[in-house]
Amino acid sequence: MSSAVPQSVTRLVDEFSRLPGIGPKTAARLTYYLLRTSSEQSLALAAALTELVENTRTCSVCCNITESDPCSVCTDDRRNRRVICVVEEPLDVIAIERTATYQGLYHVLHGAINPMEGIGPTELKIEELAQRVGAGHPTEEIIVATNVSLEGDATASYIRQRIKTVSDKVRVTRLARGLPVGGDLEYADTITLLGALEGRREMLD
Amino acid sequence: MSSAVPQSVTRLVDEFSRLPGIGPKTAARLTYYLLRTSSEQSLALAAALTELVENTRTCSVCCNITESDPCSVCTDDRRNRRVICVVEEPLDVIAIERTATYQGLYHVLHGAINPMEGIGPTELKIEELAQRVGAGHPTEEIIVATNVSLEGDATASYIRQRIKTVSDKVRVTRLARGLPVGGDLEYADTITLLGALEGRREMLD
Repeated sequence: MSSAVPQSVTRLVDEFSRLPGIGPKTAARLTYYLLRTSSEQSLALAAALTELVENTRTCSVCCNITESDPCSVCTDDRRNRRVICVVEEPLDVIAIERTATYQGLYHVLHGAINPMEGIGPTELKIEELAQRVGAGHPTEEIIVATNVSLEGDATASYIRQRIKTVSDKVRVTRLARGLPVGGDLEYADTITLLGALEGRREMLD
Repeated sequence: MSSAVPQSVTRLVDEFSRLPGIGPKTAARLTYYLLRTSSEQSLALAAALTELVENTRTCSVCCNITESDPCSVCTDDRRNRRVICVVEEPLDVIAIERTATYQGLYHVLHGAINPMEGIGPTELKIEELAQRVGAGHPTEEIIVATNVSLEGDATASYIRQRIKTVSDKVRVTRLARGLPVGGDLEYADTITLLGALEGRREMLD
């Protein structure tokens, strides 16, 4: 940018641009929006960012993001401790919590196996999961809720094999595949349709 | 959000959501992105925000955003002090500077007249402009580069009238209207086409 732009403006534009999905134009718009509004808003955002860094850590049990260790889910006595739902990211926990149905525990992998990006099983929290299941934990079922993708499926297979070496009593399940609600059969891709066919269920009266 | 989300995460999601064009989903994605990456990036963004508030002010001459007052454009001796380009926002200054052709000064209004939103001439930096032109300033031309919109046009008319009460020697001009580069005649709206017709120029050999 030209010399008409103060350095602190350029710096904030650069920092915003480093965020995913925010290009230089959006970054500039956000910066000039903050310049126009009260300085209170910029400072509140700055404080929230600092607080995030200072107050959050990874739960030593489930590896989810938390402020207290172990996290509020792991310490909740009303939770069903016999089921662990394994997800890729903390955002996936929120998505499942929104269903307000699942009562079990979680385990956050922080990614999926992706050889193209150099992410192997050791980069993920899979050993932590194996230890949880092995250490006299009353686990009966592990629901592998990784994404429906090559990486998610590879991760699920790996987890299944790894868990079987620790305990042969634990059921390892995977979320159902099929048509999403509002999904138009005509536009469904072949693999989704195959999954929907394979997973078909008896209709009840 | 559910109790599975730490408070400092919710707070940052809320702060991101207050920014224009960022909804709750994008805000959550940005927050969890920052949780995944180094804490250094969150702190750098926080520092840039704080710096923006602490280091920037409005230039007392041209009302642009600056770190030093008067700003680097107003104090630049190589600039043509006889021309002032009037724009709505600091971002417009950057757009004109990118052309690397304009050598004059600027004046930033910080908005446009918009009765629907209760923004009258006194909410804008129009009196500051009148004072600049009146106070023995060598201004010969004022280029009104407000947006091509109802508000921008109303603001331009108001500025022209106001300037004429201060000095009748100053030329007040407006940016040309016409077809943009790459503009397809077939898809041009009527008003743009009218402007292009009215502003037509003799072709030279």
